[in-house]
Amino acid sequence: MSCLQHPWKSWRHIVKLDPDRPIQDKDLIRLGDSGTDAILIGGTQGITYQKTFDLFARLQRFIPHLPLWQEISELSAILPESDGYAIPVVLNTGHVNWIIGHQKAAIEQFGELIPWEKLVVEGYVILNENSAVAKLTGAKVPNHARGTVAYAQTAERIFGMDLIYLEYSGSYGNPQWVQAVRDKTNAHLVYGGGIDSADKAVEMASIADTIVVGNALYEKGIAVVEETAAAVHSINKKRTK
Amino acid sequence: MSCLQHPWKSWRHIVKLDPDRPIQDKDLIRLGDSGTDAILIGGTQGITYQKTFDLFARLQRFIPHLPLWQEISELSAILPESDGYAIPVVLNTGHVNWIIGHQKAAIEQFGELIPWEKLVVEGYVILNENSAVAKLTGAKVPNHARGTVAYAQTAERIFGMDLIYLEYSGSYGNPQWVQAVRDKTNAHLVYGGGIDSADKAVEMASIADTIVVGNALYEKGIAVVEETAAAVHSINKKRTK
Repeated sequence: MSCLQHPWKSWRHIVKLDPDRPIQDKDLIRLGDSGTDAILIGGTQGITYQKTFDLFARLQRFIPHLPLWQEISELSAILPESDGYAIPVVLNTGHVNWIIGHQKAAIEQFGELIPWEKLVVEGYVILNENSAVAKLTGAKVPNHARGTVAYAQTAERIFGMDLIYLEYSGSYGNPQWVQAVRDKTNAHLVYGGGIDSADKAVEMASIADTIVVGNALYEKGIAVVEETAAAVHSINKKRTK
Repeated sequence: MSCLQHPWKSWRHIVKLDPDRPIQDKDLIRLGDSGTDAILIGGTQGITYQKTFDLFARLQRFIPHLPLWQEISELSAILPESDGYAIPVVLNTGHVNWIIGHQKAAIEQFGELIPWEKLVVEGYVILNENSAVAKLTGAKVPNHARGTVAYAQTAERIFGMDLIYLEYSGSYGNPQWVQAVRDKTNAHLVYGGGIDSADKAVEMASIADTIVVGNALYEKGIAVVEETAAAVHSINKKRTK
């Protein structure tokens, strides 16, 4: 995968929508005008085909101009119409299923049907030990920046991944840790977790290549997406590496 | 890693030497003249720095013309003088340590000192459930070719690996399974296990890119290396893909 270009390279701000959480039509319309670069459909719990299909159909109706990607956590919820599929590989899981088991099972099941050109592999490091995803995957959360960097380097150097996703899931992360990863990898760096203001969006987007707004949208309303997208696109990207 | 060329691409026959097993000087000299393409130093049990250093020093003395690589299983046994380092990643392990844990720990420990340009990642599928390596790594051995292919495809497509190592460790494998993997991956395909005759060497080298002779050398003598190396180099490589 590491030789490929993919559309994430140009995305600075994306919104993660959870099929298991409600969102109104008027908010979807505002989302489409918010300036975010893409929609990633995905969640940890309660993901079904029907819920995913329903959300996707509404997105296609109200904001067809934005890329609509799925982050795959449940094989039965895969939609053929998606623009692309993000395949999470949980680098710091405690169980082989989350690093290779589910992926291998999917390849064994679908084989020739897999549209490889629409796949992007996400090398996840889960950094909030109290999050649902940390519990589900038995994540071993590093207790220093160096351990986090080592996971990212392993992903890039050993597993040839060109996208690293630092997932603070529901909590705002430590910018110094994100910067430490930035300094030691050339992979496309995605940050997610706790972005609920323009200031936080600017702080993390100044370090990472892409920031993800998720929970805050449901908890604080669609204005968070508008504010953070505007803030991210107003800054010049300051990459130290 | 998948964008890189590496010397394994031109190796058709290699010998794996175990630092924990004795070999006489005269056999090392014959090994050097056998026609094998490279020496891989590695083993599963009883690997120490001293044993590895002693074997390496004798190889440097008697057969300096062959590439001398280490397959890393024990960090304390790494020799800076090696021509290269093969990093095993056990795809079908039952424990995260063998797919990412040891590798991440090594990167965390050595960091900047790692000579990345001398590393090749081996995506291992362990296929003899009775072998020491299968027990050590808690390998989940597939019970059909399709499962083996799925591991290889996951390695290539999800982990960007360009070298797959089918390890039958001490037993001779099923050529149909090896062929099934060959048919579905473009990675450099290494076969190891039970090669103790010219016929077996030819059979597996007609499918795989590189075959490895290991145990047979210790059990049947150095003539096995001479016979298999000559046989492999006498055939035209018949690749179906």
